[in-house]
Amino acid sequence: MEWTDGATPDFALTREVTFDRVRDAAARIVGRLHRTPVMTCAAIDELIGAQVFLKCENLQRIGAFKIRGATNALMQLGDEQRERGVLTFSSGNHAQGIAHAAATLGIKAVIVMPRNAPEIKLNATRGYLSRAPEGSEIVLFDPDEAKREELGRQIVEERGMTLVPPYDHPDVIAGQGTAAMELFEEVGELDSLYVCCGGGGLLSGSATSARAMSPGCTVVGVEPEAGDDATRSFADKVLRTVRNPDTIADGARTPYTGRYTLPLILERVDRMMTVSDAELARLVLLCMSRMKLVIEPSGVLGLAGAARDVREGREIGGRVGVIVSGGNMDLAQIPELMRLAEGAP
Amino acid sequence: MEWTDGATPDFALTREVTFDRVRDAAARIVGRLHRTPVMTCAAIDELIGAQVFLKCENLQRIGAFKIRGATNALMQLGDEQRERGVLTFSSGNHAQGIAHAAATLGIKAVIVMPRNAPEIKLNATRGYLSRAPEGSEIVLFDPDEAKREELGRQIVEERGMTLVPPYDHPDVIAGQGTAAMELFEEVGELDSLYVCCGGGGLLSGSATSARAMSPGCTVVGVEPEAGDDATRSFADKVLRTVRNPDTIADGARTPYTGRYTLPLILERVDRMMTVSDAELARLVLLCMSRMKLVIEPSGVLGLAGAARDVREGREIGGRVGVIVSGGNMDLAQIPELMRLAEGAP
Repeated sequence: MEWTDGATPDFALTREVTFDRVRDAAARIVGRLHRTPVMTCAAIDELIGAQVFLKCENLQRIGAFKIRGATNALMQLGDEQRERGVLTFSSGNHAQGIAHAAATLGIKAVIVMPRNAPEIKLNATRGYLSRAPEGSEIVLFDPDEAKREELGRQIVEERGMTLVPPYDHPDVIAGQGTAAMELFEEVGELDSLYVCCGGGGLLSGSATSARAMSPGCTVVGVEPEAGDDATRSFADKVLRTVRNPDTIADGARTPYTGRYTLPLILERVDRMMTVSDAELARLVLLCMSRMKLVIEPSGVLGLAGAARDVREGREIGGRVGVIVSGGNMDLAQIPELMRLAEGAP
Repeated sequence: MEWTDGATPDFALTREVTFDRVRDAAARIVGRLHRTPVMTCAAIDELIGAQVFLKCENLQRIGAFKIRGATNALMQLGDEQRERGVLTFSSGNHAQGIAHAAATLGIKAVIVMPRNAPEIKLNATRGYLSRAPEGSEIVLFDPDEAKREELGRQIVEERGMTLVPPYDHPDVIAGQGTAAMELFEEVGELDSLYVCCGGGGLLSGSATSARAMSPGCTVVGVEPEAGDDATRSFADKVLRTVRNPDTIADGARTPYTGRYTLPLILERVDRMMTVSDAELARLVLLCMSRMKLVIEPSGVLGLAGAARDVREGREIGGRVGVIVSGGNMDLAQIPELMRLAEGAP
């Protein structure tokens, strides 16, 4: 069945993403990546009215969680696959994840990126790729004309490469689940866990860890208002899509959740919600001024979701976890964020 | 003897600041303040060509190391002194330190601040003071007209308060020395330690810890070019002063080192140096984009010193410590920093 608007999720696929697989991923990547700190901040606790534990993946290698899934996937390639190399498509952080893992593991990588990806992410990807084997390159495309998956699959067929998609792959999802696993290991069980959602890799991996390590924890997925495909999919229980959503959360501009991630979200996530760009801007600035941490707009989605729930009177419990997904932001964007934040509730 | 340009330091005073006193301060403040993380970053290691350990006092309570000395000093007041309250003068971070410690310990505090102090520091000080006992207040002065020490001493006499100066006090210096003490405890001995210098409290405290815990470590104090009084004092071995230096490093606009800090610096610091505002701006932006940490311009003085030494071919060793002093920066300043950084070497 084609994976287009209205498609029905296949729940049999969720069996491929078990907590054991997350644990295996953790054992595989340990020592190669940072065990990122869990941080707390009095100003954030005050805002949310709870003890908030922020798992700081902005302090991860490449500045985002994406290196977890990328490393886990690349480490499992066979000899011939390693020889022919890998391809991926990504608006940014997954591109950096694959480029960094490819350079570290000595595997050739081709990365398909939209022309409008943030300059900082293009440059960083180029930097990592320069240390990867010869033949590694970035292929730019115009997001209005080409569908990145189609372009990617075409190159894969031509060059015999292995596709490592940005989220819809059990090894990628299991790798992303290691962040929440580390969070629960460090702070124990939680009342709620807020996770950002683009394609749903981090969210479904996090939910897999939560179900196993903190069964009573309410897992909430958070999207930008303009990119609310997963929230609508969650409500309708079929695939809903969005086209080039206009949001500052560039990491969550993904057009749809995947064949794996959608049934995983439906099975293991308790609730989906959206937040406005103004709320994201306000929280990026709050985290910079009070926590002294640079978190990109997509990275504060979880925190913005918790703040919105509290503002709207939802009960979220006294111990709240948030996955801070990344920190790769163009600093030139800050004046725009300051203007946007003025409209925040 | 008056403490003015050309004054001779009294080395007998250095005996009041021993490493034992730093250790006592650490025992006193433990649990009340954060044990800040020591962070590393591949991009910084590459820039410096060494393993660089950053002691992140920007992640300290109030966003700066100043809370260490303030807490240590206030905890040692007698009953009558506590009753009458404390006064201090500060361009910002020490003000927040005293305000926070006063609120926590229930002591009345009057804080004399220049009108041109950064808005973020004025607001934060106001916020902490609002939880301190009644009678606590900020007194603003015009830095071009009044000497803050004179104004402060006048209020102290009128109200019978205890003066807790921002740096020139053995308890304050000992408290500041606990940051470097924690750094050495965590990473062991170092080849060099770079510390920013305003009035010299952090620098002389850090040097005291270094002499005791890592005797072979070269301790370097770093000032902004416009506020080079300590560097000239170090060369001339008498007090040199500066007047309202024009620098983005607002935490290091101090006009001179103190009766305690100058002889301590002469006795325990190996070298003094300056860096330009363009270098500071470049490093603030580098730390934000690569380390995902917000560090104020004064806070990167140490790192900028290490970078300059390496650029100029000085041997600084393979294991380098840097005290990152604070992170309280107006984010509206970032576009200005981007312009300034274009002129960096």
